[in-house]
Amino acid sequence: MNAAGIVVEYNPFHNGHFYHVNETKRKAKSDVLIAVMSGSFLQRGEPALVDKWTRTKMALSNGVDIVVELPYAFSTQKAETFAAGAIQILDHMKCRSFCFGSEEGQLDPFLQTAARLYEEREALNECVRSSMKKGNSYPTAQTLARETLFQDQPLPLDLSKPNNILGFHYVTANNELNHPMQPLTILRQGAGYHDEQASGHIASATAIRNLLFDQKQADHFLPHSVLSILTEHKQNGLIHSWELYWPLLRYRLLSIHLDDLNAIYEIEEGIGPRLIDAALKSNTFLSFMERVKTKRYTWTRIQRMMTHVLTNTNKKEMNDAAAHVSFVRLLGMTENGRSYIRAIKKEMAVPLLSRTAAAVDLLSLDIKVSRVYAAASTAPAHYTEQLLDHEFSAPPILL
Amino acid sequence: MNAAGIVVEYNPFHNGHFYHVNETKRKAKSDVLIAVMSGSFLQRGEPALVDKWTRTKMALSNGVDIVVELPYAFSTQKAETFAAGAIQILDHMKCRSFCFGSEEGQLDPFLQTAARLYEEREALNECVRSSMKKGNSYPTAQTLARETLFQDQPLPLDLSKPNNILGFHYVTANNELNHPMQPLTILRQGAGYHDEQASGHIASATAIRNLLFDQKQADHFLPHSVLSILTEHKQNGLIHSWELYWPLLRYRLLSIHLDDLNAIYEIEEGIGPRLIDAALKSNTFLSFMERVKTKRYTWTRIQRMMTHVLTNTNKKEMNDAAAHVSFVRLLGMTENGRSYIRAIKKEMAVPLLSRTAAAVDLLSLDIKVSRVYAAASTAPAHYTEQLLDHEFSAPPILL
Repeated sequence: MNAAGIVVEYNPFHNGHFYHVNETKRKAKSDVLIAVMSGSFLQRGEPALVDKWTRTKMALSNGVDIVVELPYAFSTQKAETFAAGAIQILDHMKCRSFCFGSEEGQLDPFLQTAARLYEEREALNECVRSSMKKGNSYPTAQTLARETLFQDQPLPLDLSKPNNILGFHYVTANNELNHPMQPLTILRQGAGYHDEQASGHIASATAIRNLLFDQKQADHFLPHSVLSILTEHKQNGLIHSWELYWPLLRYRLLSIHLDDLNAIYEIEEGIGPRLIDAALKSNTFLSFMERVKTKRYTWTRIQRMMTHVLTNTNKKEMNDAAAHVSFVRLLGMTENGRSYIRAIKKEMAVPLLSRTAAAVDLLSLDIKVSRVYAAASTAPAHYTEQLLDHEFSAPPILL
Repeated sequence: MNAAGIVVEYNPFHNGHFYHVNETKRKAKSDVLIAVMSGSFLQRGEPALVDKWTRTKMALSNGVDIVVELPYAFSTQKAETFAAGAIQILDHMKCRSFCFGSEEGQLDPFLQTAARLYEEREALNECVRSSMKKGNSYPTAQTLARETLFQDQPLPLDLSKPNNILGFHYVTANNELNHPMQPLTILRQGAGYHDEQASGHIASATAIRNLLFDQKQADHFLPHSVLSILTEHKQNGLIHSWELYWPLLRYRLLSIHLDDLNAIYEIEEGIGPRLIDAALKSNTFLSFMERVKTKRYTWTRIQRMMTHVLTNTNKKEMNDAAAHVSFVRLLGMTENGRSYIRAIKKEMAVPLLSRTAAAVDLLSLDIKVSRVYAAASTAPAHYTEQLLDHEFSAPPILL
C-alpha cells in the first residue's frame, strides 16, 4: 500500500484541512493517508480547543485513515524540533511521501533553500548567535542573519511566512532520513495562517477558534461532520482555552521555588521574578500575557514557557524526550488504516502503542500532560474523569 | 505593664474563646493580653475559615490587645512543635504568664507530668520508636509508650485529651526558657474539642464551622461583634474550606514529580504513588481523604501533608524555618496594645515586623503560604487581590 503523511493540529478541523487531505491523496496517489497530530498542547503553546480523541474523530470522518500523536516533546516546540519529530514519525509509519500546505505552493524553492542553507549553515549559526546576544528573538535573529548572508543572491523561498518555515523544516528533516520520503506541497487556500478575518468557505483555525470562544457560528468554515462532532462534544465537554488553566498556572507561579522555575524547559535565568510578579497582579491569562510580553519574549515564546510551567516539564525531561522518537502512539484509524497497520506493524523500528497503560514509562511525559489537560478549571467532574480514563485505558478510535 | 499570653486559632472566635480571654485576664491580673494566632493554615492541616486579618479583628473586638502570628512553620505542626513556637513568641513578647484551656483544668497535674516525663524521656523515646516501627501512628505510639512505662504509677494527667496534650507541651516548652513564664490553665467549658454537637452557648469551633459550611445559623455561639465581622466578610470574601483548594491540590498531585513529592515536608517514602492514584480518582477533597486514610495515616496527619503539598513546602525549608523563632509578625493591636509595644519593642531579641514587604527573606515561607491561601478556587478576583495586597503592604490592624 502507498501511504502519504501529513502533519496537523486540527484545532479544529476545517474546510482548509479538508482541501489539504484531498489534494494530498491526489498528488501522492496514495491509498492510505496518515496524519501525525499534536496531542493536548499545540505548537504555539496553547491547550487544544478540544481533546485529542475528539479531534481524531474529526480527522477520521474527513478522509484521514490513521491518526498518530505528535508527542508533547515535539508538539510544543519551535518549528525545527516540531518538524523533526513529525517527519521521523511519518518515516516510522513507512510513508512514501508527505505533503504540507505552504504560502509558496511550489516544491523547488524549498529544496533549493534547504540546499543553500545547508551549505552556509556554519556562517548562519554564527550570525544568529551574535544577533541574539544583541537582544533579538530567535525568529528575528534568523531573519536578519539570512538577509545579511544572502543579500546578493536572495533565497528563492520567503521564510517570513509561518507555513513556509514549517515546510522548510519538514524538508530539512526529511533530508536527514536514511531513506527520505517524497516531499510534496500545496498552496494554502484562503486566509493566511494568522489571519483573524475569514473569507469564502475557508478561514484560518485562529479565526474559527475566536468564533467558537465567542460562541458565534463557525458553520460556514467547518465540514458538517465536524460541526456535529463539536456539538456532541459540547454537550458533555469543554471548549478549552488558556483562561481555563489560568487559576492553576497562577497558583503554580505563586507557589513555585525560583530554582524549580528556572529548571522548567525554555525558562531563562532572570525571567522568573518577572513572571511571578505578573502572576500576582493578573486576574486573567490575557492580562498576564500583556504584562510579560516584550520585544525579546514574543507571545508564542511565553505561551510555550507557560505550557511547560503548567505541565511542570523541566529541561532534563524535555531534552530526554525530544532527543529522538522512541514510540508511535496510535490515536485512531479507519478499517482501511487498520489493514495498513497490520501490514507494517512488524517492520516498525519503534513500538506502536495503543494504550498508555501498556507503556507508562515511555509515555510518562504525555501521561502527565494529558492529566494536566484534563484538570482544566470549570471542567465538570464527569468530563475530567472521562478524559483521564480514556487517556489511560481506552483503545484507539476505530471509525 | 503586666502582659499575659494565649495561644489561639480563632477559627472562628466563639463564646468559649471569650470566656478564655476574660478568665486569663482575671487569673493573670494582667493589663495587656497578647494572642499568638495561627495564620492561614491551622494545626489540623486545614485552611483557616476566614483570613488572618478578619480573625485578628474578631480577637481585638473581644478583649485581646495584641495579635501576633504563629508562623506557618509552627502553626501546621504536631503539638510539640506548635507549642514550642507559640511559647517562644509569647516569651519574645515579654509575657509574664500564659494561660491555656484544658480538659484537666488544674495546673499541678501538668507540672508533675512534665517533670516525670522529663525524667523518663530516654526510655519513653525508645518505646515510641519501637512502637512506630510496628506500624503505629505517632500519637498512638506515645499513648502506648506512656501506658507501658507508667502502668504502676499512672500519670496524673489524661494525655488522651487534645487540649491536655497541647497544654502539656506549652508547659514543657516553657520549662525550657531561660526565664519561664507563669503557666495558668482554665477548665474548658461546654463541648469537647472534637465534639460536633453544640450545647448551651458554647460549642466547639468544629461544630460552628460545620454550621457555617452548611450556611446554617451559628449566632447562638458567637459574640455579636464576631457575627457582624463574619457578615461583613461574607459580602466580599469567602468561607474557606479544603474543597476550595481541591482543584489546585489535585492539579499539583497530578503534575508533581515523585522525587519532588517525596521532598515535601512530612511526606514519607512510599506514600506518594498512593496519593497520586487517589487524586486521579477523586472529584472532592473529602473522597480523596476517605481513599487515603489508613490506621497508620490519620486524618490530621494526611491533612497536614496535603497542606504542605498545596503550599509546596519541602523538608529543608520547613526544618530551617521551624528551627527557632527568628521574628514576630504583628497582625493587629488596640491602643492599649500599642502602648505596650512601644514600651517593649527595643528590648525584643528578634525583630517585630509590621509589613511583609519590609522583610521578604525572613518571611518568605509565610508570604508563599498566604499567596496560596489567596488563590482559593471560586474566590472572586477582587477578593484574591485584596488578600494579596493586604498581606504584602498593609500595616497591622489598629482597633
